[in-house]
Formats: sequence, C-alpha cells, structure tokens
Amino acid sequence: MTTAPRSSIDLNSDLGEGFGSWRMADDAALLDVVSSANIACGFHAGDPLIMLDTVGLAAERGVSVGAHVGYRDLVGFGRRAIDVSERELTADVVYQLGALHAAAAVAGTTMDFVKPHGALYTVIGSDELQARAVVEAIASYDPTLAFVAPPGSLALELAEDRGIRVVREAFADRAYTAHGTLVPRGEEGAVLHDPQTIAARVVELATTGRIAAITGDVLELDVETVCLHGDTPGSVAIARAVRAALDAAGIAVRAPVR
Amino acid sequence: MTTAPRSSIDLNSDLGEGFGSWRMADDAALLDVVSSANIACGFHAGDPLIMLDTVGLAAERGVSVGAHVGYRDLVGFGRRAIDVSERELTADVVYQLGALHAAAAVAGTTMDFVKPHGALYTVIGSDELQARAVVEAIASYDPTLAFVAPPGSLALELAEDRGIRVVREAFADRAYTAHGTLVPRGEEGAVLHDPQTIAARVVELATTGRIAAITGDVLELDVETVCLHGDTPGSVAIARAVRAALDAAGIAVRAPVR
Amino acid sequence: MTTAPRSSIDLNSDLGEGFGSWRMADDAALLDVVSSANIACGFHAGDPLIMLDTVGLAAERGVSVGAHVGYRDLVGFGRRAIDVSERELTADVVYQLGALHAAAAVAGTTMDFVKPHGALYTVIGSDELQARAVVEAIASYDPTLAFVAPPGSLALELAEDRGIRVVREAFADRAYTAHGTLVPRGEEGAVLHDPQTIAARVVELATTGRIAAITGDVLELDVETVCLHGDTPGSVAIARAVRAALDAAGIAVRAPVR
Amino acid sequence: MTTAPRSSIDLNSDLGEGFGSWRMADDAALLDVVSSANIACGFHAGDPLIMLDTVGLAAERGVSVGAHVGYRDLVGFGRRAIDVSERELTADVVYQLGALHAAAAVAGTTMDFVKPHGALYTVIGSDELQARAVVEAIASYDPTLAFVAPPGSLALELAEDRGIRVVREAFADRAYTAHGTLVPRGEEGAVLHDPQTIAARVVELATTGRIAAITGDVLELDVETVCLHGDTPGSVAIARAVRAALDAAGIAVRAPVR
Repeated sequence: MTTAPRSSIDLNSDLGEGFGSWRMADDAALLDVVSSANIACGFHAGDPLIMLDTVGLAAERGVSVGAHVGYRDLVGFGRRAIDVSERELTADVVYQLGALHAAAAVAGTTMDFVKPHGALYTVIGSDELQARAVVEAIASYDPTLAFVAPPGSLALELAEDRGIRVVREAFADRAYTAHGTLVPRGEEGAVLHDPQTIAARVVELATTGRIAAITGDVLELDVETVCLHGDTPGSVAIARAVRAALDAAGIAVRAPVR
Repeated sequence: MTTAPRSSIDLNSDLGEGFGSWRMADDAALLDVVSSANIACGFHAGDPLIMLDTVGLAAERGVSVGAHVGYRDLVGFGRRAIDVSERELTADVVYQLGALHAAAAVAGTTMDFVKPHGALYTVIGSDELQARAVVEAIASYDPTLAFVAPPGSLALELAEDRGIRVVREAFADRAYTAHGTLVPRGEEGAVLHDPQTIAARVVELATTGRIAAITGDVLELDVETVCLHGDTPGSVAIARAVRAALDAAGIAVRAPVR
Repeated sequence: MTTAPRSSIDLNSDLGEGFGSWRMADDAALLDVVSSANIACGFHAGDPLIMLDTVGLAAERGVSVGAHVGYRDLVGFGRRAIDVSERELTADVVYQLGALHAAAAVAGTTMDFVKPHGALYTVIGSDELQARAVVEAIASYDPTLAFVAPPGSLALELAEDRGIRVVREAFADRAYTAHGTLVPRGEEGAVLHDPQTIAARVVELATTGRIAAITGDVLELDVETVCLHGDTPGSVAIARAVRAALDAAGIAVRAPVR
Repeated sequence: MTTAPRSSIDLNSDLGEGFGSWRMADDAALLDVVSSANIACGFHAGDPLIMLDTVGLAAERGVSVGAHVGYRDLVGFGRRAIDVSERELTADVVYQLGALHAAAAVAGTTMDFVKPHGALYTVIGSDELQARAVVEAIASYDPTLAFVAPPGSLALELAEDRGIRVVREAFADRAYTAHGTLVPRGEEGAVLHDPQTIAARVVELATTGRIAAITGDVLELDVETVCLHGDTPGSVAIARAVRAALDAAGIAVRAPVR
C-alpha cells in the first residue's frame, strides 16, 4: 500500500487526566499545539469538573474533542488489563461516551471521536471479545463517531466492518519495528527524547507516509493522526517542536473531517 | 390554592439501584406498576451495565425514564449530605445526565426527567448554592428535561424561574404534617405500612388533590407524581395495591407529558 | 499420598460481602454453622462498618476470623483478573490485612488466616508474579497467619516454602475432576445443589480424605477446610445440612490450630 | 496559661498524598526537614503502595509516622464535610489506622500518632458526634496513639478525657486571630508566604510559646508541633527555612515522646 503525500495531519494529545486535586499534564500548553483532544472520561482519570473545564478550553481553541475511554481503574490509571465481560465493557464505554457528550454539549462543542486509553487500547488490538465490545458501544450509541486506533489493530478492523470511520494513529516519540509495531517500552531506543529528531520524523511521516524503523528500514505507515504525550518531562517542548516543524513545512494541523 | 381533580397521575420509583453484583429492589416487579423510572446514574448506585439493562426493561414497558442523580457516594448510598462546591455539583449532575442519556439512546428510548436522590433531594430543598448548581446543570445541558421535586422545594422554584418544567412529587408511604412537609423518619407514624391505607390515600390525592395530614387536617397537595419505594419488605405489595386501586378508580397512571 | 481419617474439619464461608446499603449473604445464619469466617476487606466487597460488625458477630460465636483479600474492584466483586504489578499487589494485600487486623482488635478477637478471593484466588494458583506478591505480603506483615488455598495451588507451594502454615481447601458444592481440580462452572454437573448429597460428600471427605470425582473415580483430597457458599438460593439450607451431618457423624467442626 | 520555653519542637507535614499515578508534594524533600510524617491512608489520598513507600522513606530517616485519616472522598481530597454517622466514622478511622499500622510494621517502624485531615480536622473541632467518633476509634483500637489537633478543638478535649495523649498543633504559614484561631483562608493576610518571616515566627513560637496575632497582639499558643505544608509552590523552600532557623537557634526538631 502506498500512502499519498498529505497536506495536513492531525495532532492529538491525552488531556484532562487529573482527578480531583491531582493534575497530570500541562493541558493548556498542549491545547495550543494539537488539533484533537482526547478527554479522559472519569474511569482511568478525569472527573466531571475537569472534563467540563478541559472541554471548555478545547472549544475555545477550536480543538476537536474526543472521548478517551478506559477501564474503570483510577488507581491503575487504566494501564492494567482487566478481564471484563463483553457486556460490561460495552456498557462502560457507552457510559463514558454519554458523559463526555454532555460535557461537550454544555461547552457548546461536539464530541467527534473515541480513542481507547492505556491497557484497553492495547488489549483491543488483539482480544476479540473486548474489541467487539468497544466497537459495539460506538455502533449502538453513535456510529458517526470516528474511532482512533493504531494500524493493524483488530478493533480497527471490526470498526471498519461496522461502517465506522477509523483514524489510524502513530506515536511521535516512539520507535517502530520494521513490521510497523511499536518497539516495546523498556527496550533500548523504544522512546525518543530529542525534540528536533521527533519533529523531523513527524514531518517526514506527514509528507511521505513513511518513517524510519528502528532497524533503519523505511516503513510505510498509513496514519492520519499523531499522538503527542503530555505527561513526561520535556513533553511540552517536544509537542511545540513538532508543531513548529509542521507549520514551517506548510503542513496544516487539523482534525480529521468527521 | 385549589387543585383540580385529576383523571391521571404519575407513579414513579427508584430503580437500577444495585451496583456490580449487588441488587436493591425488585425492579422488574416495580416496572410493571409505575409510569416513570428514576434510574440511578452511578454516583449513589447503579453501574453502566445495570443502567443499560434497567433502561431497557423500562423501554420495553413504555415506562418513562429519568435520571436519578445523586452525590458521588456509593458507600453512603447518596444519603449523606456532602459540602460540595457549586461548580463540582453542576459538573457531577451534567455527567450523570449524559451517562443516562446515552443508556436511553442505546435502549431506543429517551431521557425525560431528572430527580435528585437522597441527601441531595433534601439539601436542595433549602440550600441555595446546591439548588442553583443542580438547576444550572439541567438548564445548560437540556432545559427541556422535567425536574421532579417536592412542593415547597427551593430547587423547584429556581427551576421554574429558569423555565424548566417542574413535576411536584408526593410520597405514597409517608405521613405529612399539616404544613405539607414530610413527618421526619423516626417520628411516630412517619412511615405507613398498610397497602390498603396507602392505596386509598393515593386515590384520594389523585382525585381530589387532598390528603389527610398526620394531625387529621385536610391538606391540599398539588402534585403530579407519587413515589413508590421498592427497597423495603412489602414495598412491592404496596406498589401493586396502589396501582390496582388507581386502576379500579379509573385514574390513568401515566408519565407527565414532557 | 494417603490422608488419615480426621476427627475434625473446618467449615469456612465468605462473609461481610456487602457494601454500604447492599448485602450479599445471610451472614448471621452462616456464622451459626461455620468455624471460620472469611471477611471481605473493602477491596472486592466489605466496608469498614460491615467489617467491624461482621467480625463482632464472629467473635461472639467463637468463629475464627480471616482476611478475605481481593483485587480492588468493587463493581466486579473481585471476580475479574487484573494485571497488577507485584509491588502493587503486595501493598494491596498488606493494606487489607492491616484493616482487618484492626477490626479484629477492636472486636476483641484475632485475625488468624488469609484467604484470597475470587479471581485472585484463581490467578495465584498458577501466576508466579501474583502468587509471590500475595505470599510476600503475608510473610512481611505476619508470617504466623495461616494461608488458605486449594491443593495444587502455586501460591500454596510458595507459602510453604516461606514457612507459612497452609490450609488446603475443598468446595462443598462443587464437582471435582479425576485430577482433583474443580469442574469449571458452566460445565454439566459442575455445581451441586442437593443438600443431602453435599452433606454426605463432606462427611465422606472428612472421615476418609476421599471424595468421588465427576468421573466416578475415587479421589484423594487432602484438605483441612471446606468452603460453604452463602450467596446463592438454598445456600443456607446446604450449609445447615452439612453441619448437621458432621455433627451426627461425630466430626468436630473447628478452625485449624494456628 | 504560660508556656515554658522549649528546647525542642516537632515539625510535621502531610505526606504520601498521591494516588496511583498522581503525586501531590515533594515528599522526599520534606522528609529531610520534618520529624513527623502524617501519612494519607487511602481515603482522601494515598494508596497502599504509596503508603508502603512513604512509610519506608520515613523509617529510613527516623521520622515518626502517623495516620492522616480523612473522609472517604478521593475526588474531594477530604476537603468536603460529609454528614457521616458516628459508627461509620469510627469504623472508617479504625480501618485507616489498621492499614497504616500494617504499612509501618512491614517497613520496620511504628505508627505513633493520628492526625485527622482536611474537613474532618475542622469538623471535629466543634461537631460532637464526629469528634466522639474519631476519639472512640483511637480509644478502641490503640489508646497509646497520640492525637494531633489544634488548641481549642473539641476533639482534643474529648481525647484528653479518654486519657489519650494529645499534641497541640500550630500552622507555620497561617496567620492567627487574637483569639488563637486561624484567620480564615481568603481573608487578607491569612496565608504567609515569606520563608524568613515564617521561620522567625516558628523560632519565636518554639522558644517563647508566643506568636504575633494578625492584630499585632501577642498570643500565647501552647503547641508541641508545627505543620509545614508541602503542596504549594515555595513550600519546600519555606520548610527548609524553618528547619534551618530552628537548627541555628539550637532548638531540636523531634517528634513528641509517645
């Protein structure tokens, strides 16, 4: 598959990931960089007031709002796989979608997409029961929502089969294997740290649809959105460098048309 | 104020008040009796799957669905007053409304009304900050939702001021003072137990707009809905007796027109 | 291995599995039957007041008290495997042990044993990381606590290696394969329902150390305690039948000596 | 009452107030300054692993460990009054004490004191039911624990009546009225920010038992411990300035003898 050169790309970031008095990332700084905001919905992070406030900030900046749905696991920040039943998971996702939809409505904007978080994002890449549960939630609640997933995800295939608009995602600060999968965290070179290197990779990806794998091979990576992390030291600097490089290259940063 | 005789009345009950493996009332039995179902939204009780299932049962029976919103307090079942801030409470209510709206949409029905639960129901009868917070949530999310509250509630007044349709509520199994307020639980005679007595009172209320106060005085009580409890021994028998008596008296049991 | 005839056996049951206003089993009835009470510690069920009350009831009857530790998952009742880290799980178990120890101290009794609950009980039968985490919690907090697990459990082996007193457990109402493992729920005949059949099996097990497998083979089952469920219809009748049969056979029902 | 000059004072700080992936203060920096660590017990903040880790850090430095008990309200960080029943509150405090006791035991140290947190700290200053509930928890679980409270607190009186060792507390960064109560947050001058000013006040208090009220009056303040906050910008600088000033004045910083 050859990917056509793009004149635009979406940048997304995980936002509103505090809870009560706790905060995670510098949401305001990231909202000045991204075109799509994945808003935590209260299960892995986020509480109703943080959701309203974060959606409000996104709306002010014209940033697209999506539901960052996760396992019900605040203490684990949604990063621990849970062996949920299919019906439980469908219901959990419907619940989170409704909650964020309401926040968006109150803020005068719309909820445009769904991106699973953390362990759920990973599990539904290959677990059929859970993948089906998430897709069923979207299909039964609002099949016009876009669904964000990495290339190759089982959930992405199931979503396409149900007629749901999918948005393939790459990670700006992660290395890829020659097979197009992420180099697992913990392996040498898995996470990139230099803002300029990361920015150059994203520009390359946006303009050519290709990225260098950790092996040096050139990888075709058909993605419409790139995730920028906000919760690590230096992440805001990386996000700004990526945005500046895209701006300089004349590549528009904008959310996928719904 | 004189209340006109009615040809119909609404019966409502608190449903879906389990959590995970726990259950509270006999929801299926009550759904055969009532015209409106107050569905717990996950804060004082209810979880996403129970919500979906309960809304589904209500939809099958043509029972109107409303959000039974409460404080975030599962262990206290929403029965303990919490000193929340105004913005927190507004956000908490918007969140619950959105979650139930989604469940209703998935079940192919609509969310028609809002009824605060437990301590929140009581507190917003007189606390201006909290009353304003709840009304603001409804007004900003969906001002066409009806709002259920007892006659005399401050929140009811504020809701009317905002143009929200209000539905005044009486309690079938509770005694009233001569001033139209509930006799506090714990006082002699505060809670009625005999199904026939309760049924006769509801019929009297529905046909004349009057009810006997605990003092023996006749009380004008301008209400459109009567709450039937489902969580105590004998409550299903009471609910059925009330319904049978209304049916026998030719009084239609139906939800308020939205 | 040949198991010597016993003159006594322990009967245990899962108790205090309510939360807030919700209740699960008929704790008082079961406490009149069993010699050991597995008390939920607030993670899968149980709250501080229920713990105090249930421990108090056990203390009044001279029933041995143990910590029924589980995953932090109220909505899943601890029945869903969670991919926790080793240190998290050790800390979670230490926390629950401390909480129940305090309840026991206030009630004037002691905490004698630990029994993992639900999915944790199953997972540590074979998952080394989680098995080690649970055993480490016991060893580091109080290595004189007994540890309840099924014959063949990996956690049981690890506990013995650390010098912890182990108590092997059978299930009164479950069928066994010829290999001594439980017939999975959902398979034909996995769960027994007839009180007299169950009672006879427990007496046989207590006197001979043998039980009939579902295949008809005679199985040696080296156990010191038998679990009686309390959360299903008829479970109290089963519990009482087992106790009556043991009493009639002259087999003492008592907790393992710590 | 005249307070004798002291040759030592206790410095305490609220620590371990993260939850899961979230953190609140710079615990390690504060542990190098204080003599007593108030460890969150999982109800307003803190989780089992954070508790173990924080108690471990305190133990390494010889810092005294106490239970910072709060309402069960993570989203509100324990800062919202909750209308709990007496028995619920006693049980909640016993639970938290047991959990921290276990963490201390595993870390090879002891739990020495109890300090209520946030809204609970305030409420039990005047609410008899809740004050009695907290004192009952200490008395019934371990009456040798010290109890930290501000001068004039009702709970402090009730604790003394029960024979519990009390430790009176002042706040380093707060202004006092001429009556010895804190100037409410939000009023002009209520919170002090200058490290040197705060340090000088603590030295004055430690050596003379007196402090200047906001009115300019000299106030006798009979306290054994001074609280240093760790969750605001500059708080670590303030804490270090206070410690340095006490060291320079030859005043030992140490926990109360239990």
